[in-house]
Amino acid sequence: MDVEIQMRPAGRARMPDPNDPGLLTPAQTSLLTDQYELAMASSYLRRRMNETVVFELFVRHLPPRRRWLLAAGLGPALAMVKAMQFGEDELAYARSLGFERGFLEYLARFRFSGDIDAMPEGTVMFAGEPLVRVTGGRVEAQLLETLLLNQVNFQTMVATKAARIALAAGGGQPAGDRLVDFSPRRDHGTDAAMKAARAAAIAGSAGTSNLAAAMRYGLNPVGTMAHSYVMSFEREEEAFKAFMEDFPGNAVMLVDTYDTVEGVRRAIAAARDTGVPLAGVRLDSGDLLDLSRKARALLDAAGMSDARIVASGDLEERQIARLTAAEAPIDSFGVGTDLGTSRDSPVVNGIYKLVAHHVGGEWRDVRKRSPEKTTVPGAKQVFRGYVGGEMRGDVIARLEEQLPGRPLLVPFVRNGVPVREETIQQMSQRARAELGALPSALRELDGEGEVYPVSYSELCRAGLQALDARVG
Amino acid sequence: MDVEIQMRPAGRARMPDPNDPGLLTPAQTSLLTDQYELAMASSYLRRRMNETVVFELFVRHLPPRRRWLLAAGLGPALAMVKAMQFGEDELAYARSLGFERGFLEYLARFRFSGDIDAMPEGTVMFAGEPLVRVTGGRVEAQLLETLLLNQVNFQTMVATKAARIALAAGGGQPAGDRLVDFSPRRDHGTDAAMKAARAAAIAGSAGTSNLAAAMRYGLNPVGTMAHSYVMSFEREEEAFKAFMEDFPGNAVMLVDTYDTVEGVRRAIAAARDTGVPLAGVRLDSGDLLDLSRKARALLDAAGMSDARIVASGDLEERQIARLTAAEAPIDSFGVGTDLGTSRDSPVVNGIYKLVAHHVGGEWRDVRKRSPEKTTVPGAKQVFRGYVGGEMRGDVIARLEEQLPGRPLLVPFVRNGVPVREETIQQMSQRARAELGALPSALRELDGEGEVYPVSYSELCRAGLQALDARVG
Repeated sequence: MDVEIQMRPAGRARMPDPNDPGLLTPAQTSLLTDQYELAMASSYLRRRMNETVVFELFVRHLPPRRRWLLAAGLGPALAMVKAMQFGEDELAYARSLGFERGFLEYLARFRFSGDIDAMPEGTVMFAGEPLVRVTGGRVEAQLLETLLLNQVNFQTMVATKAARIALAAGGGQPAGDRLVDFSPRRDHGTDAAMKAARAAAIAGSAGTSNLAAAMRYGLNPVGTMAHSYVMSFEREEEAFKAFMEDFPGNAVMLVDTYDTVEGVRRAIAAARDTGVPLAGVRLDSGDLLDLSRKARALLDAAGMSDARIVASGDLEERQIARLTAAEAPIDSFGVGTDLGTSRDSPVVNGIYKLVAHHVGGEWRDVRKRSPEKTTVPGAKQVFRGYVGGEMRGDVIARLEEQLPGRPLLVPFVRNGVPVREETIQQMSQRARAELGALPSALRELDGEGEVYPVSYSELCRAGLQALDARVG
Repeated sequence: MDVEIQMRPAGRARMPDPNDPGLLTPAQTSLLTDQYELAMASSYLRRRMNETVVFELFVRHLPPRRRWLLAAGLGPALAMVKAMQFGEDELAYARSLGFERGFLEYLARFRFSGDIDAMPEGTVMFAGEPLVRVTGGRVEAQLLETLLLNQVNFQTMVATKAARIALAAGGGQPAGDRLVDFSPRRDHGTDAAMKAARAAAIAGSAGTSNLAAAMRYGLNPVGTMAHSYVMSFEREEEAFKAFMEDFPGNAVMLVDTYDTVEGVRRAIAAARDTGVPLAGVRLDSGDLLDLSRKARALLDAAGMSDARIVASGDLEERQIARLTAAEAPIDSFGVGTDLGTSRDSPVVNGIYKLVAHHVGGEWRDVRKRSPEKTTVPGAKQVFRGYVGGEMRGDVIARLEEQLPGRPLLVPFVRNGVPVREETIQQMSQRARAELGALPSALRELDGEGEVYPVSYSELCRAGLQALDARVG
């Protein structure tokens, strides 16, 4: 890159380390921002353009193979917003980039002091609908952009994937309790692993293999054994007996290291030999329908009908739906890669756009008009209509409107102070209710045709035309 | 999930918080591990099975649409391994899960004390080749699994994507200096954003928009302005003049908020009015080939041939290759979503497998035999052959072998002590050399047919057969 579009550091307070672990504290997320956010904020401050503005976070289009999204990521994002500050290292670095003294002094005192309204986590959402609305000074509202998107985009993606798995495991009704998060080894780093477990829990998952996430978020820690454990013993049955003796309350045996059906027989024999009740078997490869039936038959014949069957191994929702439709006797699904990466649709393209600002003593709508990238102007609310408990359509309206239906955005922060906090149980109950209220065609994984009706209010459309007339 | 496959916390030292920011310190990565890792480790310790073992990290198959991978993520992962420890909170949590006292005491003293060999970051690698080899006590080697995979998998994925972009931007020769990382808003959380910038730098990128990553890793911070900046002024030209006045050394104008060609004219006019040299324009939407030609013509006609053209807006390598082939006058490409998520191939399925252990006074090979999931036994090295500077084939050999060619795995940690550290410049120079040495067909983005030859040494194959005979 050339010197013209850079600001070369003139000197640094903190020496860079090519092998830094790269982990930030909540306060240090202040610099987890695009360079231009600081540049623009600095310019606004210098020009006394720190009027109150409104930004909205939304997706222009639903991702491929998704007809709705499940909102997630707000809680940790707001916790970061509350904690973020520019410490000595961050200020020294900003100074080295050439930012002027007045701006550095502003950053040194920075605490977000505006308002944030949002759809609570676990809400089903659609394209065009504001998921988060930030109202505050232009400078501080600008400074939240990168961090909010960095947190909300991928967590919404994972929660949506987890919700699809929950629907697949329940044959079209949410059955998150059959899902366990096995994703840490395929998540994108430590933060992603923490949040994937949390997003899966919002979609109703029964637990996670990730101990750090289980500890911080109060989730159920879940696990069995790896193939390397079985291979660390001379014979498979020895491994099973050892694990039963060491964890008599958690005796789930991984049975596919050598031959799955033989492995089930050995697990049964080990339980008999040790007297430890066989809690279950885990199938991690092969034809899961056939193997789960054979395993179930062997376990039942051995009088071990309480023993559960856990399936894992590159599972995704379409396979889970087929297994569920075929009534495979599988009690729960451990999902890793596909849950953490949403492999079949790996991007939620949330954006954060200025929609209104208070200039010259009045609120004015703002809107982007690049080809195919228009923004609907004005601060907005979403009203959701129901008939007989089923979602029947959303209307995106201007904030000053009161329309029939349930308003989806609610206050989370006022004057920088959190005014609403939810437990993960509340979020997952909401998600369950929302998923259950989706029209049945939208609860299918790949249904074609049926599109959920989302429209703009008359006033919203009028605002769009008025602005067209003014700018055009 | 049912009680049988959980260990319910009996009590917690640290109260869970549903809205915890979820950010770990390097020490706290000790619990960024699957529950079963702790269970297995505890069992090994109790059973005095803490013999020396060898684990290898590798991919069984290349991901779809990839014919090689660029190794990345080792440095930060090893920094975490060095820092990880079980603090009071972690120990209290492990105790609450029922782990026994002897194991908790082991964890309290835990520091990794084994050996790690690996391909240095920036090495081109293929399926089946060990990327990292861990040699140590069975307990401690087991405890690294989740963290190493969590770090190395996605960073290798991003570095590979960045390398493909570099090749596309150079028409088949690596030209990473035309790539800038714009991914923080689409990366999966804070850790992913830090590492995406670093992985892109290993592939040769010219910089990143991510200030936290630029600060920690010593990368070039890069940025221009957003549409919201332009829209914060009454007229586009006012916004341009303001930015030029505030950042006279970084005057790159985003010209597509209203009409791109008109935007270029206004940028030229603003530069004339302010006397600030126009550093460049950024095109973020539309037909980039057509618009870049028009922008170049306008800039040249205005005598501003030093002004650069930066392109962005959902770019990926195939589009960049087409633009490069058409000789679009674009100087650099800001890539966000596709770089950070590797959208067309969003998973690197690295695994960590036990391949040998020292039991009964001798080294024994270990191997998994599940259907389609076999592991080649024994500690291994990879030898890469060159002819005339071009890579001609790799041989995966047993560690005790010395074959012709360059051995790819080198020592990084001995007895827990780092013995090799590299700068990002060293890594990116290696990557450039490796990418340049790939057979030309493999430097094409979508070439069919040509598969890089990777074979096993005779001794490796003999080991496989010997084990088959013993186990079968």
